[in-house]
Amino acid sequence: MNPMNASKPVLLQNVKIEDDFWSEYAKRIREVVIPYQYETLNDRVPGVEPSHAIRNFRIAAGVEEGEFGGFVFQDSDLAKWLEAVAYVLTTHPDETLERLADEVIDLIEAAQQPDGYVNTYFTIKEPDKRWTNLTDCHELYCAGHMIEAAVAYYRATGKKKLLDVMCRFADYIGTVFGEEEGKLKGYDGHQEIELALVKLYQATGSDRYLRLSQYFIDQRGQAPHFFLEEWERRGRTSHWRGGPQKPPQLSYFQSHLPVREQETATGHAVRAVYMYTAMADLAAHTGDESLLQACRKLWSNIVRKQMYITGGIGSTHHGEAFTFDYDLPNDTVYAETCASIGLIFFASRMLRLEAKGEYADAMERALYNTVIAGMARDGKHFFYVNPLEVWPEASRHNPGKHHVKPTRPGWFACACCPPNVSRLIASLGEYMYTANGRTAFVHLYIGGEAAVELDHTTVTLTQETRLPWEGSVNLRIAAEAPAEFTIAMRIPAWSRTPVLRVNGEAVDVASCLQDGYAYIRRLWKAEDWIELEFHMEIQLIRSHPRVRANAGKVAIQRGPLVYALEATDNGAPLASLCLDKTSPMTARFDAELLGGAIVIEGRAMREEEASWGDYLYEAKPKTSETIPFKAIPYFLWGNRGEGEMTVWVRE
Amino acid sequence: MNPMNASKPVLLQNVKIEDDFWSEYAKRIREVVIPYQYETLNDRVPGVEPSHAIRNFRIAAGVEEGEFGGFVFQDSDLAKWLEAVAYVLTTHPDETLERLADEVIDLIEAAQQPDGYVNTYFTIKEPDKRWTNLTDCHELYCAGHMIEAAVAYYRATGKKKLLDVMCRFADYIGTVFGEEEGKLKGYDGHQEIELALVKLYQATGSDRYLRLSQYFIDQRGQAPHFFLEEWERRGRTSHWRGGPQKPPQLSYFQSHLPVREQETATGHAVRAVYMYTAMADLAAHTGDESLLQACRKLWSNIVRKQMYITGGIGSTHHGEAFTFDYDLPNDTVYAETCASIGLIFFASRMLRLEAKGEYADAMERALYNTVIAGMARDGKHFFYVNPLEVWPEASRHNPGKHHVKPTRPGWFACACCPPNVSRLIASLGEYMYTANGRTAFVHLYIGGEAAVELDHTTVTLTQETRLPWEGSVNLRIAAEAPAEFTIAMRIPAWSRTPVLRVNGEAVDVASCLQDGYAYIRRLWKAEDWIELEFHMEIQLIRSHPRVRANAGKVAIQRGPLVYALEATDNGAPLASLCLDKTSPMTARFDAELLGGAIVIEGRAMREEEASWGDYLYEAKPKTSETIPFKAIPYFLWGNRGEGEMTVWVRE
Repeated sequence: MNPMNASKPVLLQNVKIEDDFWSEYAKRIREVVIPYQYETLNDRVPGVEPSHAIRNFRIAAGVEEGEFGGFVFQDSDLAKWLEAVAYVLTTHPDETLERLADEVIDLIEAAQQPDGYVNTYFTIKEPDKRWTNLTDCHELYCAGHMIEAAVAYYRATGKKKLLDVMCRFADYIGTVFGEEEGKLKGYDGHQEIELALVKLYQATGSDRYLRLSQYFIDQRGQAPHFFLEEWERRGRTSHWRGGPQKPPQLSYFQSHLPVREQETATGHAVRAVYMYTAMADLAAHTGDESLLQACRKLWSNIVRKQMYITGGIGSTHHGEAFTFDYDLPNDTVYAETCASIGLIFFASRMLRLEAKGEYADAMERALYNTVIAGMARDGKHFFYVNPLEVWPEASRHNPGKHHVKPTRPGWFACACCPPNVSRLIASLGEYMYTANGRTAFVHLYIGGEAAVELDHTTVTLTQETRLPWEGSVNLRIAAEAPAEFTIAMRIPAWSRTPVLRVNGEAVDVASCLQDGYAYIRRLWKAEDWIELEFHMEIQLIRSHPRVRANAGKVAIQRGPLVYALEATDNGAPLASLCLDKTSPMTARFDAELLGGAIVIEGRAMREEEASWGDYLYEAKPKTSETIPFKAIPYFLWGNRGEGEMTVWVRE
Repeated sequence: MNPMNASKPVLLQNVKIEDDFWSEYAKRIREVVIPYQYETLNDRVPGVEPSHAIRNFRIAAGVEEGEFGGFVFQDSDLAKWLEAVAYVLTTHPDETLERLADEVIDLIEAAQQPDGYVNTYFTIKEPDKRWTNLTDCHELYCAGHMIEAAVAYYRATGKKKLLDVMCRFADYIGTVFGEEEGKLKGYDGHQEIELALVKLYQATGSDRYLRLSQYFIDQRGQAPHFFLEEWERRGRTSHWRGGPQKPPQLSYFQSHLPVREQETATGHAVRAVYMYTAMADLAAHTGDESLLQACRKLWSNIVRKQMYITGGIGSTHHGEAFTFDYDLPNDTVYAETCASIGLIFFASRMLRLEAKGEYADAMERALYNTVIAGMARDGKHFFYVNPLEVWPEASRHNPGKHHVKPTRPGWFACACCPPNVSRLIASLGEYMYTANGRTAFVHLYIGGEAAVELDHTTVTLTQETRLPWEGSVNLRIAAEAPAEFTIAMRIPAWSRTPVLRVNGEAVDVASCLQDGYAYIRRLWKAEDWIELEFHMEIQLIRSHPRVRANAGKVAIQRGPLVYALEATDNGAPLASLCLDKTSPMTARFDAELLGGAIVIEGRAMREEEASWGDYLYEAKPKTSETIPFKAIPYFLWGNRGEGEMTVWVRE
């Protein structure tokens, strides 16, 4: 079903990334993160709190005795690992890894209950409490992640075992939830099943999964409110705290209103963007214009009112949540890595619905800044919170900033972000291209080769680029036979004067530009090529005057990369710095910096501390000295020990 | 005992305030706050949560049946009311009010237990749990407030009933706590008894009260830690939350170290400054140099590292606490009104120990800014939190700022601040002067008359001033007979070029200035007078470069008053404003403004919002327009509806 003429994704098996920048990340995921995570899932990493995830499945499967361990949603860690493994196997077949995955899948199958139910917490610990606390207990969330894993593993290997297990589970879920008399009119506290069921539909063609997803989306926020009724039914308790509890705050779960009536992104940021992703998916498959309209409004609210320049979302750690328009504090921010990954999901679905540069711009912004900032170069330390301003002493001594870590912590007990980074980077190929009729869209400039199926022809696109460091892109186009079709090249918002050439001949970008894409339609022959050259100027970015936190400040950006200043290069306090705009800034490749990166250097004024004296307040001007400053890509911050960092600098 | 040659306070009965500025406040306390509080204490104010305070005493006294109501420290509300009433009666005798107070005192006497114990919570609710949870339950805190009330009431009226009641209680406390075998080696979670016992000693001359105070101070922070042992003894529970609890965080209670080893102000700000006050008191009475040294260090840490320009202290609402040096966020601040009142207590005690302008400067800063900002002009609405930057939407929608209110709320269930404002303002006369041998110190410039007892003579000082609006002070000196003594006039730090005249003749300030006081020694005759003229220039204040929150910003101050910009005068966002330093600022009396006040006007640049467009981030400069701005005294903010406010403005 494609009533809205949505673009089709180009699946991972058809994309091979070979890229100076990204291949390194993919390798780190394959060679470090996934094996390391496998060890944590098996409780074998010294110093890391045991995950219990695999052990829980062994207990649920009856092959081991014991108690359930970990969070109520612990199963999802195993699911995300399996999903990432599937993506890795798609692009890098590996028998040993596949055997480990098959063993895990056997275990999952063995833990499945006769009626199809899969969830180790309830199977082991509270078998009679299934579906009694959707608000807190993540049952459908875990199901969703396992469905995503099943679909990915099936696409990667052709093996259906896990897919069948999860189809049985989904079919069982369909007997529990729905409008029909006797079924629960509920939905999960943490959205995820909705987007997963769309994937299950796409993989199997069974539209009952699509309808079940739509049911969850349609039902959400309807009165009477399910979470309030459920809270009454279970005696006003919570899974998380003892004693009687206040009623759940519906906006936290995006269930305060029917989804079509929601206009501003609110509540827990990850839940929100997972839900919007499913809404966009459903709009594409069902042609529901009202869902698309809601998606557009919510998207617009995020990127125009509630998104950090790094593509981070979620302005407060209280509920890991959105707050309100233009409230973007840099120091008490949450900006969870997972939320930016969810924003990328949402953007990718919107891009299928309508090819607009702003979707790809935000996707790129989140990817190159928050998402890869989330992972240390060792692949074993991760940011959950991605601040734009850090003062390490404040993180330690001001409780309002305890959640802001000045360096990447190791694997957490609640390991949501690391496996999310794994599965995103391992499947990055899927975000690069879409196909729509006779048009192939290029959304991300990443080196490698892709086979894009257009109507009547399959085109092989081969990209070469040195982005994000240098601005040239070379795209070779090889159709099966000469054919007329369109290549739509994204022109990023950060690029002001791109140069476009086809087979060496200049093409006027303005003449073929629409909504951020340059459409090049012609009869393409083998050996044709497109060149794009972006001028990688250093940009000083300012923010909307309503963003109080950034008043009087600029951020430095070059290409898709946002830059940050660290105390290790510039001393502290960084707040004492003021960029000297009269002095030019230069970009220089620093081979020594964390594997090599382009740094930006210039001159700044620094308030002298020595001449100030001992007092807090004085009726005198401060004296300043001119000093050189150095900014590094934001994604590299926090890799050289603990110190201050800031993205926004006074000008 | 006065081993350190400390100055003597000039007691309230010897000071009469007649002042354009302050008499209005005193009148509001007398005519509005105290009667209104009496009604709240009697649960008779519609819409205000019942206090239960008087009812609790009736129940404990056996004249009414019922359950205890309110917080475990509810008794202290009644005590603070009584103390404020005593101060009012000192300066404004009022039979009706005195009769009400006498009735309350009868009730307190009736509620006293045979062994001397006074506490309605434990008497009514948990009679067998006395002294089992000093950490949480404020027993000695309540005792301290009642002792302060008793001393004040005795001084005001000469009536000893309450004093006797509290002496009996203090004597009983002395049988419970102490070093001796079988006694509790504890102290209260909330310091207060320590300073109260010093007052009891001063009023009665019984040095056992001084020794008991010293015991509490000396014992605090000694290992093994009392609060940890107590927590174990009561089964690791808390008065405030059900279920097992983590051990108490000792630094919150300033019991992490013996007090003499404490060097930085830490933990709950009110508890801290109440304790430091007692430490200074004890140093004065016992000559304990090590306590004085600790007080100096702690004082210095507060005013040089942890105090807002408004005299607010406590940078975080988590625990209403200090955080660490130079951490002075303007928007997530706590700066509780009570904490600034406690800072004034501490300052006044330090001033007795050593006449240094910095104590009086901070006292004045807290008084003219945070303390009086705490109360609305109607006397019925109060700030507990005194922010330096408010964005009302953020207070509503960002949970990290929920504690910051954009307008003064009504009387709270936890009514700590309003009665504290009452008792401070009602006793303001006590903070103006001290006497030391043949020197009379003038610390605060407030109109009125005072009788200051010097060695061998009593001097009547009559002040006239239009401060804080205009800078002239006239002090008439009338000794009983011509005598040689010294008048030490404080020269505030904000005054750069004061003009000093004696009987119309100029005196060179520099020649007689020491530590912020101009010492004028001569043979004073009747009709002699001193004139001081402060140049009330508008000062742009900057803060220490390590105060990240104020980088690039200035605050406006004139005389002792810090100014604030409000959106109602200047539009929003206030962050879009940047002071135009090339344009002069002027001070103008605005008779229409909230009873009349000097406002400061000038020109500022405002970033234009209309030309910005819809996007959050743009690589373009902002355009600005020049607009007039208006700043009002900080203490008046939040009286004209809800809107943004800021003290610090970009320059």
